[in-house]
Amino acid sequence: MIAYLDNSATTKMCSQAKEKMLEAIENNWGNPSSLHEKGIEADMLLLSARRTVAKALSADEKEIVFTSGGTEGNNLAVFGAAYANKRKGNRVITSAVEHPSVKKAFERLQDEGFEVIYIGTDSFGHLDINGLENAVNEKTVLVSIMAVNNEVGAIQPIEEISKIVKRKNSPALIHVDAVQAFGKIPLTPKKWGIDLMTVSSHKIHGPKGVGALFIRKGTKIRAVTVGGGQENDIRPGTEPMPAIAGFMGAVEALNVKASLSELSCLRDNFIGRLKNIDGVKINSPANALPYIVNLSLEGLRSETVLNFLSDMGIYISSGSACAKGHKSYVLTAMGLDDRTIDSSLRVSLSRFTTQQELDYFIEGIEKAMKVIMKR
Amino acid sequence: MIAYLDNSATTKMCSQAKEKMLEAIENNWGNPSSLHEKGIEADMLLLSARRTVAKALSADEKEIVFTSGGTEGNNLAVFGAAYANKRKGNRVITSAVEHPSVKKAFERLQDEGFEVIYIGTDSFGHLDINGLENAVNEKTVLVSIMAVNNEVGAIQPIEEISKIVKRKNSPALIHVDAVQAFGKIPLTPKKWGIDLMTVSSHKIHGPKGVGALFIRKGTKIRAVTVGGGQENDIRPGTEPMPAIAGFMGAVEALNVKASLSELSCLRDNFIGRLKNIDGVKINSPANALPYIVNLSLEGLRSETVLNFLSDMGIYISSGSACAKGHKSYVLTAMGLDDRTIDSSLRVSLSRFTTQQELDYFIEGIEKAMKVIMKR
Repeated sequence: MIAYLDNSATTKMCSQAKEKMLEAIENNWGNPSSLHEKGIEADMLLLSARRTVAKALSADEKEIVFTSGGTEGNNLAVFGAAYANKRKGNRVITSAVEHPSVKKAFERLQDEGFEVIYIGTDSFGHLDINGLENAVNEKTVLVSIMAVNNEVGAIQPIEEISKIVKRKNSPALIHVDAVQAFGKIPLTPKKWGIDLMTVSSHKIHGPKGVGALFIRKGTKIRAVTVGGGQENDIRPGTEPMPAIAGFMGAVEALNVKASLSELSCLRDNFIGRLKNIDGVKINSPANALPYIVNLSLEGLRSETVLNFLSDMGIYISSGSACAKGHKSYVLTAMGLDDRTIDSSLRVSLSRFTTQQELDYFIEGIEKAMKVIMKR
Repeated sequence: MIAYLDNSATTKMCSQAKEKMLEAIENNWGNPSSLHEKGIEADMLLLSARRTVAKALSADEKEIVFTSGGTEGNNLAVFGAAYANKRKGNRVITSAVEHPSVKKAFERLQDEGFEVIYIGTDSFGHLDINGLENAVNEKTVLVSIMAVNNEVGAIQPIEEISKIVKRKNSPALIHVDAVQAFGKIPLTPKKWGIDLMTVSSHKIHGPKGVGALFIRKGTKIRAVTVGGGQENDIRPGTEPMPAIAGFMGAVEALNVKASLSELSCLRDNFIGRLKNIDGVKINSPANALPYIVNLSLEGLRSETVLNFLSDMGIYISSGSACAKGHKSYVLTAMGLDDRTIDSSLRVSLSRFTTQQELDYFIEGIEKAMKVIMKR
């Protein structure tokens, strides 16, 4: 038996995504910039895909820029917003638990002279809202907060954050890294007053190598890369059509609310059972995104458990897959003790996750605890 | 009948590329950064792909960084080299006929205070080598010259350029945009003393959305984007595995020398026939890459001919596909007159191009000349 429970690292493509991608490869492989029939065909497909992604974000098609994925989207948003608004102020704000593609972008901004403020969280990863409110001032040009934390699944109150920033009369653009949230909870950036929102394809059963950045109408950002004018000159380069088509298929296949309620049941049941096991500590908040469950197995090192489970065909993550082998700065920022951090595991579900897979995971950790403890 | 003769804009994926891509989608869809079996599998595939691309450039696997394509590769090379070497000098050199992804990167460098020198060409697009030699000095930190021009197919003497730069005792890094050259002429950047070389997948029958940058061992460049550490921290973000696998398939299917000699015959015959048609002027040099033939049909506007041919199922380009509808700055820099530029067409071949397609193109322009002239 195989239990793939690392869906926040990446997902397997769903049939709709594959279908659209293969169709594009076979029949619609022109360059959307070409002026002949083959190019126009490709350009039409690009437009459909853009409309599909826009609709999923209750946005206008002109507000969607395709990127190569979440990292590029986050970089484009953070650098793009900071550089475009440099004249208005020098302060940029983010949280202490962002994905490396946001965190390191802020570190670079700091090296370049921006004043970076990191807002902390409570022990479940929830943003210190008062801290944020105090930090935002009239010299703040960017606030970047993730919608859902990739390690523990904590959901941030994005709409409230947006209101606070606006209340403080700040010129700040608001960016939301929604890579882990997209397709999993309803997202309405425009309605919430969000200026920039990053989404990715391969976390929702679409292909890797594509994502999108929502850029609210009228929002000016500076392109990170330059070239042939594609994507409104914000993200030039020949559009990765087969991947974009696959992304469209994946988005079309989403049923956000239905999946959310199914996953909630699955997760609640899963957590209930985990709590009955001696030595298991749940690190995710009770109201976390049900797709992500972070737990610690007291006294067992994550890597050891991860390898043990991998041998059984159970695939999970220790902290973020992006931070290969390093101690989780997210759990550290949440104030967890070293013992908890060193033994933390991330189980991440998808709408295709079955009860059997979760049962097998529980079997796996029970076995791990017996076997590894005895060594 | 269909004649797709716009292969320098993009190509249809070959069977080997499709096969590898589909295999990755079905069986090898893990995240290469994941530490479990599914991740390790993906990481192994990534390594094979890296070795394949490295071999095609007579390079070491550690010298290959995967990118999202040619535009990103060129941006990474130009910005990366200029910023990393800022302290050594302020002069950067390129040609007047580069692709927009290089041209606009230099324009941005100029805005930021770099001294940019543009080297001109003769009327066939061949670089003014003396001009280059005079421009390179001890304050030059980057020389970026394309291997093959995308509009006319002019081949630049890359090895000679490299020797000149080194002879002038300059600290300059040498970058070569080899997007149109890769897979079509033998490229040995290391042997030639090239530091950075950009290649792309979708010009050689691989998928769009992936390319690679050769970075000579020991060459330091500054990453344009930041994130989770992938690709040696030079190009972070989850690797687009299905596209990378497809790129590998496309590279494996190459037979550079055999295709080059076949294409040369096809092209010579094609040009011979074109020259017999009244009103046809060949803009490509006689020793151009045989994959690209730029010609002008006296008195006929490119767009008119392009649409006429598109209706017949003949797909070509007017100038570069990247510069949708704009007057070609490449042909302008080559010193061609407006009449020639306004009527220029780019016919671009691939190893799958048949004699029949070229016959049909000739039939097409003969018809176009009769029909459009009469209007």
